[in-house]
Amino acid sequence: MKRYLLTPGPTPIPSEALLAMAKPAIYHRGPEFKEVLAEVKEGLKYLFQTDREVYFFTSSGTGSMEAAVCNFLCSGDKVLVVQGGKFGERWRDICMAYGLQVDSIDVEWGKAVDPEEIKSRLEDDPSIKAVFVQFTESSTGVKHDVERIAQITGPLDQTLLIVDAVTGIGVYKIETDAWKLDVVITGSQKALMIPPGLSFICVSDKAWRFAERSNLPKYYFDLRKEKKAQDKNENAYTPAVPLVMALRETLRLIRTEGLDQVVERHARLAEATRAAVQALGLELFAPESPSNAVTAVKSPKGMDSSRLIKHLREKYSITFAGGQDRLKGKIFRIAHLGFADRFDVITAIAGLEMALYDLGYPIQLSAGVRAAQERLLK
Amino acid sequence: MKRYLLTPGPTPIPSEALLAMAKPAIYHRGPEFKEVLAEVKEGLKYLFQTDREVYFFTSSGTGSMEAAVCNFLCSGDKVLVVQGGKFGERWRDICMAYGLQVDSIDVEWGKAVDPEEIKSRLEDDPSIKAVFVQFTESSTGVKHDVERIAQITGPLDQTLLIVDAVTGIGVYKIETDAWKLDVVITGSQKALMIPPGLSFICVSDKAWRFAERSNLPKYYFDLRKEKKAQDKNENAYTPAVPLVMALRETLRLIRTEGLDQVVERHARLAEATRAAVQALGLELFAPESPSNAVTAVKSPKGMDSSRLIKHLREKYSITFAGGQDRLKGKIFRIAHLGFADRFDVITAIAGLEMALYDLGYPIQLSAGVRAAQERLLK
Repeated sequence: MKRYLLTPGPTPIPSEALLAMAKPAIYHRGPEFKEVLAEVKEGLKYLFQTDREVYFFTSSGTGSMEAAVCNFLCSGDKVLVVQGGKFGERWRDICMAYGLQVDSIDVEWGKAVDPEEIKSRLEDDPSIKAVFVQFTESSTGVKHDVERIAQITGPLDQTLLIVDAVTGIGVYKIETDAWKLDVVITGSQKALMIPPGLSFICVSDKAWRFAERSNLPKYYFDLRKEKKAQDKNENAYTPAVPLVMALRETLRLIRTEGLDQVVERHARLAEATRAAVQALGLELFAPESPSNAVTAVKSPKGMDSSRLIKHLREKYSITFAGGQDRLKGKIFRIAHLGFADRFDVITAIAGLEMALYDLGYPIQLSAGVRAAQERLLK
Repeated sequence: MKRYLLTPGPTPIPSEALLAMAKPAIYHRGPEFKEVLAEVKEGLKYLFQTDREVYFFTSSGTGSMEAAVCNFLCSGDKVLVVQGGKFGERWRDICMAYGLQVDSIDVEWGKAVDPEEIKSRLEDDPSIKAVFVQFTESSTGVKHDVERIAQITGPLDQTLLIVDAVTGIGVYKIETDAWKLDVVITGSQKALMIPPGLSFICVSDKAWRFAERSNLPKYYFDLRKEKKAQDKNENAYTPAVPLVMALRETLRLIRTEGLDQVVERHARLAEATRAAVQALGLELFAPESPSNAVTAVKSPKGMDSSRLIKHLREKYSITFAGGQDRLKGKIFRIAHLGFADRFDVITAIAGLEMALYDLGYPIQLSAGVRAAQERLLK
């Protein structure tokens, strides 16, 4: 049975990357791998729109989230966390694990944070050392306005803006330097189009100054050590070599397509997906500020989304993601990020229609497909 | 040019594992991957000779070393570290990063620790909460007598034995349960025959009791969270799926060959390598307690080993590892672990002979090969 993976990570992997992983092992401290690292470094700078280095760890994206906490802050520091989904809560949990004092802005799941609220919180309390936010909150399919938030934090010497861009980088053109983002992290199994196992972090000069005073314990995720090693095209600890080999290939693909085109493709696919589900009479979970990485859709009336997802997987070999935590059963999520193109959207929507039909939900077959086609023809 | 990778990690990868990595992405929370995890779990228990679970992280082996510190100890705890090489020093560094009070036994590099010294240290100071040691110290090619050390720590309620078996598991039959080892860690790119990127940790009941009181900050390497997830064949955070797919293949290979046979093969290859380098008039760096994973050899008189290694790589595409830190230039290391068999030893020795010949060092071509052959014929 041919399978269709449409989750917001892992995402499908181009064959160039798959084949790179099947190559025999090479020594990670030899000259050949140094060349690979040098090329990867350039590709990452392009993707992050930065002149600084982008460092990586062998870990899931959560590893770089932890690095973004333990490298820049001190025990007892006050931080402000935007909590509007599962990954916002993860920022909070990591900060609490390290004994930080966590203030939060609780945003209704499915809504974006109001940047003005961040502004007033920072004005009220200049002792806040960092603002933590998601570029896109993939648990709810929401995009926060990080560019605007950065206009608030950029001029402040005492406060960092720390951005989880796990499903943002490569979906949007994130101007790390120009917007003055202090710490930006991402993961490998999203728009980077390789399997999970690497995470990435880019650090501003302001954030490096914070790193000097940070007293939180760290070893594996110690960024100063990685900086020292990676600035010489090495790694502090043995990296997941096949994933790096694969990354070289996908960064080449991104460069060839061009970042603007990659971003435009994501926007087009997302728009088509949103139009299609609405044409089927389904409701978007985050209509006001939807992410171009993944579309969250409310469960059809009277149906637990888990049932729909199971049916799609078992009968059509299509994998959608469900809702997480409090959204379990309440939404389903269709990803359109990374190695995705027009007919992946068509597949997703046609499969959705057929599954809803099977389950007796009143829809008109092809109505969603047609809406998607109209958007994709533009 | 055909390449021969003879470093103590990464090690060559069987094609079954390489091809498993080239398969399309699957969803790490779907039913298919759960089956993979269940099978991998059984294979790891066999390899670790344990009835308990073996958990894994997406990280280098250093990640599990850090997990072995931050999950079981409290700030200010006194620990005893066996320091006889680069990896012993890493135990110390991690413990210090977490604010532990580190006592050490400084062992001359190339020698094994005397277990009686550990015994008397623990008798003198019952406040020592953990002993940290390498099963094999791959920086020096030494094997410590962990079975004996465990006889000392086993009866002590107040002290854990924490073993870095990164180049021990799969080279030796390590009886995790029977010997009462409290924490055993390993990495993927050694005898497990897959690329770097996963690390493993097995925990005794005694160690889990220590985990209850541990107050060190942790998030990504929080073992209790991984236990909860992995006991249900899930992961707390997205794992490096292709490496797990590869691991299933190599664990099958190990099961098919049989652990006793795997261990015996490593012993035979190591013995042949040692005999061969001695037949060439070279000196073993750790003659008294050599590791069966890697043979450390002193640099030929008057020659920096870096020169030899560079020549082998450039002219013969053979990669040996050099000495690390204070041993840089002073030794070279020939690995014979993982996916290694008789003619890999022959290749290593024949290449070494030809390189020494090229460099004008007085040796008799084939004298080492012959000594290896004699051992391998037995």
